[in-house]
Amino acid sequence: MAFSVSSKGVYAIATTPFLNDGSVDFTSIDRLTDFYEESGCTGITILGIMGEAPKLEPEESRAIVKRVVSRAKVPVIVGVSAPGFAGMRSLARDSMEMGAAGVMIAPPPALRTDDQIVGYFAGAVDAIGDDVPWVLQDYPLTLTVVMSPGVIARIMTNHSSCLMLKHEDWPGLEKISTLRSLQIAGELRPFSILCGNGGMFLDFEPERGADGAMTGYGFPDMLTELIGLFAAGKRDEAHGLFDAHLPLIRYEQQLGVGLAVRKHVLKRRGVITTDTQRKPAQSLSSTAKAEVDYLLSRLARYDKRAAL
Amino acid sequence: MAFSVSSKGVYAIATTPFLNDGSVDFTSIDRLTDFYEESGCTGITILGIMGEAPKLEPEESRAIVKRVVSRAKVPVIVGVSAPGFAGMRSLARDSMEMGAAGVMIAPPPALRTDDQIVGYFAGAVDAIGDDVPWVLQDYPLTLTVVMSPGVIARIMTNHSSCLMLKHEDWPGLEKISTLRSLQIAGELRPFSILCGNGGMFLDFEPERGADGAMTGYGFPDMLTELIGLFAAGKRDEAHGLFDAHLPLIRYEQQLGVGLAVRKHVLKRRGVITTDTQRKPAQSLSSTAKAEVDYLLSRLARYDKRAAL
Amino acid sequence: MAFSVSSKGVYAIATTPFLNDGSVDFTSIDRLTDFYEESGCTGITILGIMGEAPKLEPEESRAIVKRVVSRAKVPVIVGVSAPGFAGMRSLARDSMEMGAAGVMIAPPPALRTDDQIVGYFAGAVDAIGDDVPWVLQDYPLTLTVVMSPGVIARIMTNHSSCLMLKHEDWPGLEKISTLRSLQIAGELRPFSILCGNGGMFLDFEPERGADGAMTGYGFPDMLTELIGLFAAGKRDEAHGLFDAHLPLIRYEQQLGVGLAVRKHVLKRRGVITTDTQRKPAQSLSSTAKAEVDYLLSRLARYDKRAAL
Amino acid sequence: MAFSVSSKGVYAIATTPFLNDGSVDFTSIDRLTDFYEESGCTGITILGIMGEAPKLEPEESRAIVKRVVSRAKVPVIVGVSAPGFAGMRSLARDSMEMGAAGVMIAPPPALRTDDQIVGYFAGAVDAIGDDVPWVLQDYPLTLTVVMSPGVIARIMTNHSSCLMLKHEDWPGLEKISTLRSLQIAGELRPFSILCGNGGMFLDFEPERGADGAMTGYGFPDMLTELIGLFAAGKRDEAHGLFDAHLPLIRYEQQLGVGLAVRKHVLKRRGVITTDTQRKPAQSLSSTAKAEVDYLLSRLARYDKRAAL
Repeated sequence: MAFSVSSKGVYAIATTPFLNDGSVDFTSIDRLTDFYEESGCTGITILGIMGEAPKLEPEESRAIVKRVVSRAKVPVIVGVSAPGFAGMRSLARDSMEMGAAGVMIAPPPALRTDDQIVGYFAGAVDAIGDDVPWVLQDYPLTLTVVMSPGVIARIMTNHSSCLMLKHEDWPGLEKISTLRSLQIAGELRPFSILCGNGGMFLDFEPERGADGAMTGYGFPDMLTELIGLFAAGKRDEAHGLFDAHLPLIRYEQQLGVGLAVRKHVLKRRGVITTDTQRKPAQSLSSTAKAEVDYLLSRLARYDKRAAL
Repeated sequence: MAFSVSSKGVYAIATTPFLNDGSVDFTSIDRLTDFYEESGCTGITILGIMGEAPKLEPEESRAIVKRVVSRAKVPVIVGVSAPGFAGMRSLARDSMEMGAAGVMIAPPPALRTDDQIVGYFAGAVDAIGDDVPWVLQDYPLTLTVVMSPGVIARIMTNHSSCLMLKHEDWPGLEKISTLRSLQIAGELRPFSILCGNGGMFLDFEPERGADGAMTGYGFPDMLTELIGLFAAGKRDEAHGLFDAHLPLIRYEQQLGVGLAVRKHVLKRRGVITTDTQRKPAQSLSSTAKAEVDYLLSRLARYDKRAAL
Repeated sequence: MAFSVSSKGVYAIATTPFLNDGSVDFTSIDRLTDFYEESGCTGITILGIMGEAPKLEPEESRAIVKRVVSRAKVPVIVGVSAPGFAGMRSLARDSMEMGAAGVMIAPPPALRTDDQIVGYFAGAVDAIGDDVPWVLQDYPLTLTVVMSPGVIARIMTNHSSCLMLKHEDWPGLEKISTLRSLQIAGELRPFSILCGNGGMFLDFEPERGADGAMTGYGFPDMLTELIGLFAAGKRDEAHGLFDAHLPLIRYEQQLGVGLAVRKHVLKRRGVITTDTQRKPAQSLSSTAKAEVDYLLSRLARYDKRAAL
Repeated sequence: MAFSVSSKGVYAIATTPFLNDGSVDFTSIDRLTDFYEESGCTGITILGIMGEAPKLEPEESRAIVKRVVSRAKVPVIVGVSAPGFAGMRSLARDSMEMGAAGVMIAPPPALRTDDQIVGYFAGAVDAIGDDVPWVLQDYPLTLTVVMSPGVIARIMTNHSSCLMLKHEDWPGLEKISTLRSLQIAGELRPFSILCGNGGMFLDFEPERGADGAMTGYGFPDMLTELIGLFAAGKRDEAHGLFDAHLPLIRYEQQLGVGLAVRKHVLKRRGVITTDTQRKPAQSLSSTAKAEVDYLLSRLARYDKRAAL
């Protein structure tokens, strides 16, 4: 399925696997790409915040884009957020040439007023070219930039090349409802909404109008199953599945240490070879590892995928 | 049980109930005070961030302190955080005279360096008097002030009148472990640690060394049961109880709208008469109310207290 | 001259004088009130950020309002910014009853989006009553809230009781030009603009459209002379006066320590008895005092008022 | 004179000149390099915040380093601050290979506690190698990271490869005094202190213990003259020169628009061909240009260099 304003399902936020010596682990990248597709993901997003993008050299970023794009059968989105438009443009153009489906852009932390935010994305689109499809990332908790529904509407109206909102405001349920009601009223053009924020509210977001999830939880197969249950109208079943995973979802959704949990789970699932992060990194203490493993063992009673 | 460095259990963070016209609802305050005690709480904290303290007139604050202190049989802690030391001192002294067990102080958002933070609390203790027992509130997510374990250790070492840490850093599990290991090594004097942050990690905090919780979740009776299960070494049972409540705990732990959820639950439980907030307030949409009620109905299958 | 949308000249931001024991020094308040009037000020603003307002008890604030209002022949504006609307309302209503000309309101630091800011002031006006004339304070450097010209226009359009903008954005010259051009184009109603930010750009602000200054520089007599020179079209003379004072203006416009400089100058000028601040306070080192005194001695060669 | 803990004088913060089409203007870079040396600068710092570094492609950065290093006879420092250590390391190593004297590192905005800051620089030195001499940049106003004197002392003690502090805290005079008194007391090893912040307090910083300036004011020849006058003990003369330039220094020291002023002045002085900035850019309105030109004409009556 192409990347479009009608995109649905789960776009996996891919981690970037490293070998013990810190070099990029391309073998694990291949395995991870396959794993996301086998899990039912309808897309893959690489080089995002959780992908340790700022820790990569420019040539490494391109090599990763090339590797994933050439292997994946689903659309690949490339995170191109950068301190300046020059770096954003070159990574975006290079990625599209290599076959990426689109790019994702987050606002830089210094933005404050509505006009500053709207103006920034006008500059970004001017830089990458209005022929490059892109995802607008709305993540105030980490980025400190707060976009009201009105600002998102202005950006979407200004730039038809923006096909999707990565929604991860917190609290954020009402924002989805507001945007969808603007669209229903015909005051806003259609676009896809996939939810991030670690999936913490994915038990209600589909009913609010989200088309699915874009997050990196270690069980993407559970995320696709969950979205499928909602699509099938099986509300109680969906909540049952979600609730079983929530203790781990909650544990993984911790700033900084969350990536360590995610890599630990993916390693235990046999998808990536090591849980190495590049510096600066936050690692798991042995106590934290034991806590995650305990949560996995509890989850395994409900969901066999967690029996590792 | 007195308020001391050995305090354990659950200190309820009390909401402040209002009537529909916005006036303080003293009848509900009485009911709330009784409810917390009947729920097994070992203490009550009033006029905290969730208690809408900044929306109260000075005389209203004192009337509330008087009402709760004169009714409660457990220690009452009064939040006295204020933009200046003059207001902090007068509310602290007045509260102690009325019979409060101690006060709670949070750092003002502008503080940045370790020395600024340590210096601020020296000024605060100088203002309220070193004979007033107090709780140090560590809540970076809302206050933007980040206190390393070393800074907390310096404050505790400087001020023997600080008896308790209200821990609500996020992520925060390692901080508890670090502080407790400093104490075990004899490098830090004893103090109580009760955890806030809505209880989001209360399934692991007791094992990390926390003495209990200080939070305002709408089921304080569940919190005290949970702490009891951990004290009795019933780990799996404790996690079972926690996991059943986690969907609602997670929903309630949303900045801004969380208070509305909390008041809605307390109203549905028959403890407070209205869920009115003073302005500026964030209210629940009808969809959000339905979501909370659905979570309650799901929870009720596991915990009869939620069958409302 | 009444406080109105046509207000011009200099509104002095008054310091709050204390005696050595920290109590309010009402004798110095009287002298300060007279001094501002004799300096040609057309208004006085009390209990602002530089007036150490958060360090005062509620009854002290009211006593100061009463003292200044009953003595001054010019309009008195009272800073009523507060963490909650209850405290804001009661101080505003009390001040107006005592004869204040209006109040001043700054946005709380947590506000981010345009809608949040506009909504906050709607709540504030609802709280104090739309019959209370007020000044909108725009001070991003200290308050971290950034108001675009569009947001200011929305607030001014929503609330006819807002008569004046205290402009202290930095950089801020273009903002004045933008607001004035909106008014010239008939898209925005008239209001007064007085500039703060310590007077750092007062050599250009009048030509951009400002009606004068609202700041607390230790030489209000120079500020009124400067505004007079601009009103008389004596541009070069105005710049000559400004440039002579700029080294001291610049030294006084330091966050935190600036108030200490200001009180030191006012004490040396014989207006206030002590330069005592309430805690938390930042004092001048002996080196800093010598630097200020050296700047005064240099200034005295140009302006005799500085020969102290 | 080599880059060392004894470095003195003025290190110019170089702008990056662009042609009208946005490409790097190497001819102007050569002229700028010569201009700084002819102005008496003892060093040149390139690719800093004011050098629009984040707007450059990696290969452009290297080309600029190569061009300046191969032409300059004074030490060249290269700004290598980056979101991740990988990019920092590669630019640092490449720069040193091309003949740079050292690099400059600023802390990323997210750092809060003393330990986080100290830990970050340990990681940075680990990344670039402890054989690379570097400058520690302390610029809270823009970076929001506040380093107490104690933190700076810890960093200097941990890393002997740090030879210089770029001091631009505000207010910051007492910080210089504190650091120098620690050194005099033998509690801190020697390092050079050059002051930035646009030169706003350069009339007092040398007497506080600064070794000179590192800033990009459009009259570096005035900065070197000023530092020379202080070195010669000609205090009053130094202040006379400084005061004449202060109105322009103050105008240039505006966040965002300051770079436009700087490029305008350098263009008018014939050093760079265009005042083009890469996007996102803040340009000067015609009114602002006229204001700068008026300040230049006033300055020209005192300092012939400003007669343009």
